Amino acid sequence: MRELQSQEIEDIAVGAAILGSGGGGDPFIGKLMAVQAIAAHGPVRLVTPDELPADGLAVPVAMMGAPTVVVEKIPNGQEIGRAFAALSSFLGQEVVGIVPIEAGGLNSMLPLALASTLGIPAIDLDGMGRAFPELQMVTFHLGGISATPMVIVDEKGNQCLLETIDNLWTERLARALTVQMGGSAMIALYPMTVWQAAQHGIQGTITLAERLGRALREARQTNRSPIDRLLEVGHGYRLFTGKVTDVLRRTAGGFVRGDVRIEGLDSCRDYILTIAFQNENLVATIDGEVIASVPDLIVVLDAETGLPITTEALHYGLRVAVAGFPCAEQWRTPAGLEVCGPRYFGYDVDYKPIETVRLPWA
Amino acid sequence: MRELQSQEIEDIAVGAAILGSGGGGDPFIGKLMAVQAIAAHGPVRLVTPDELPADGLAVPVAMMGAPTVVVEKIPNGQEIGRAFAALSSFLGQEVVGIVPIEAGGLNSMLPLALASTLGIPAIDLDGMGRAFPELQMVTFHLGGISATPMVIVDEKGNQCLLETIDNLWTERLARALTVQMGGSAMIALYPMTVWQAAQHGIQGTITLAERLGRALREARQTNRSPIDRLLEVGHGYRLFTGKVTDVLRRTAGGFVRGDVRIEGLDSCRDYILTIAFQNENLVATIDGEVIASVPDLIVVLDAETGLPITTEALHYGLRVAVAGFPCAEQWRTPAGLEVCGPRYFGYDVDYKPIETVRLPWA
Repeated sequence: MRELQSQEIEDIAVGAAILGSGGGGDPFIGKLMAVQAIAAHGPVRLVTPDELPADGLAVPVAMMGAPTVVVEKIPNGQEIGRAFAALSSFLGQEVVGIVPIEAGGLNSMLPLALASTLGIPAIDLDGMGRAFPELQMVTFHLGGISATPMVIVDEKGNQCLLETIDNLWTERLARALTVQMGGSAMIALYPMTVWQAAQHGIQGTITLAERLGRALREARQTNRSPIDRLLEVGHGYRLFTGKVTDVLRRTAGGFVRGDVRIEGLDSCRDYILTIAFQNENLVATIDGEVIASVPDLIVVLDAETGLPITTEALHYGLRVAVAGFPCAEQWRTPAGLEVCGPRYFGYDVDYKPIETVRLPWA
Repeated sequence: MRELQSQEIEDIAVGAAILGSGGGGDPFIGKLMAVQAIAAHGPVRLVTPDELPADGLAVPVAMMGAPTVVVEKIPNGQEIGRAFAALSSFLGQEVVGIVPIEAGGLNSMLPLALASTLGIPAIDLDGMGRAFPELQMVTFHLGGISATPMVIVDEKGNQCLLETIDNLWTERLARALTVQMGGSAMIALYPMTVWQAAQHGIQGTITLAERLGRALREARQTNRSPIDRLLEVGHGYRLFTGKVTDVLRRTAGGFVRGDVRIEGLDSCRDYILTIAFQNENLVATIDGEVIASVPDLIVVLDAETGLPITTEALHYGLRVAVAGFPCAEQWRTPAGLEVCGPRYFGYDVDYKPIETVRLPWA
């Protein structure tokens, strides 16, 4: 067990937004919520699963919907507690650990804010090791755990308890509710034992996010290249350097979808990189050739500061570096690729691990 | 208390489809379900509210969605029991009376089938005295009763418990779920005390349906005009006689919407009647003049047999009589008209009671 104070929270927010691969929500909003909670209720107790009873109840919480909406409709911090309490009360069991469902500027922070507020430990793992747009895209799903009973709430006070026949139906029904609720909603789902969380989750995601965020902060303070430090800590690859010249973005059906076009600078001059996204960056293409794709992480960073730029924050004129990081091993299995490989998202390409990419100018 | 056997069920199914004003589902499917239930579990006990404890729990059940879909996706009779049991279990209270939410070929029968199956009395009232397409269009809503907690289920096994801030939100969220569930779903909602049901419901709807159905049957057996008998028993008006020459019908958003065009015969020759519908018949127009509108009942009947024709069964070539019946008094108040007057449905006309209509050839 260790305690997370404001400094750790700031680092985690930035690092989680990097792992968020463009999705998972804005790190600034997320950080504010967690820092406020800590000021009011004290530090977050971060634990590994073996510090909790194996048969205790662990519950992931998250924001669902289009991150573009959350920027306008900032969560007040109460909703997530309402979803959490309703699920716990339905199960008639006390929750011993709160779990982030994914890494992301907001979706890593919401569980930490709730952990501080309720005085319940947060468990240092998640269900993606990155962010993904749909509910079944978690390692808990690969592990056969049901997403339901699930509670979904909005900021107005509407609430819904779902019990479905499978996790694809959960996604389908919860997405329709999210759209009606205004494009974003708060959820508590995949209730499981601590043992199941340990068995099927991706270990150490919060600590990894913290290391990434801290590396970035320290590099900026010591005049080292923040991006090189990030690639070092995260075992990543620099895919591209350039300027954003076009963003096509559409918020519909409970997602934000679009493409960003980046014109190369320096060694990438004369090349154009396109990234397709659905909440998260999905597929990066140069001249029709895919150079990186889900489930690997495609991360757009500010070229100067190395700070991550989420898909809803992309805009004309930004100078950016694009980095690729290998995803968790679970996603590289046939079952993992079926759930969130490029074909699931409608791209007729085979997944190639980021380690094998050859860049045209290399 | 009286017992309903197969003959009563047959009469009620037909009479309820007449009151259904084109909606509320197919009387043939509804009748089959109820008759089967009675064969297996015995007759339905039909009671008036004063035969039950005033503080006992009364629960309406219904089919929600587009009747066009139900014809293809016939309910198996289990779903409605599942919705009912889930709501009763959530409330932790035994249900003493089952209530039809509306009159309709299917939606009057589902509660009776369930009442027979579970051996729980059905209460002789409903929330509309007719059928309407949306959840808040019930006199229980006018009486300030919350539609939630509400349970919605599909035939696949998905289930959702809604708790909303008002009944318009219930309609909105449940409609989105219905669409995802394939266009129709089974619901249990507006849980209330028997006293509230008596206070706010429309009394005697099942008995009225039975009287209409029986009048039709007996008129056919005695060679009297079935339509004249119906108008007599239901205090209705003959609005039109003609032939269906066009039906525009679209099933989308959890409703069936459209228009039917009827060319006049006999005294109506040279006139064309158009009826706009959304599950139910909403507005009847001759040469741009509205001759009848919601909340009054507009009913299309087979010109020969007097049997009601639901909006999903309308087709080219049918010879029909169109009848108008006055709605329940609750709907004629300003509050009632706000909920289901013509303006709610987008028609910029004032509601005129059917009793004041002047037909162009009269």
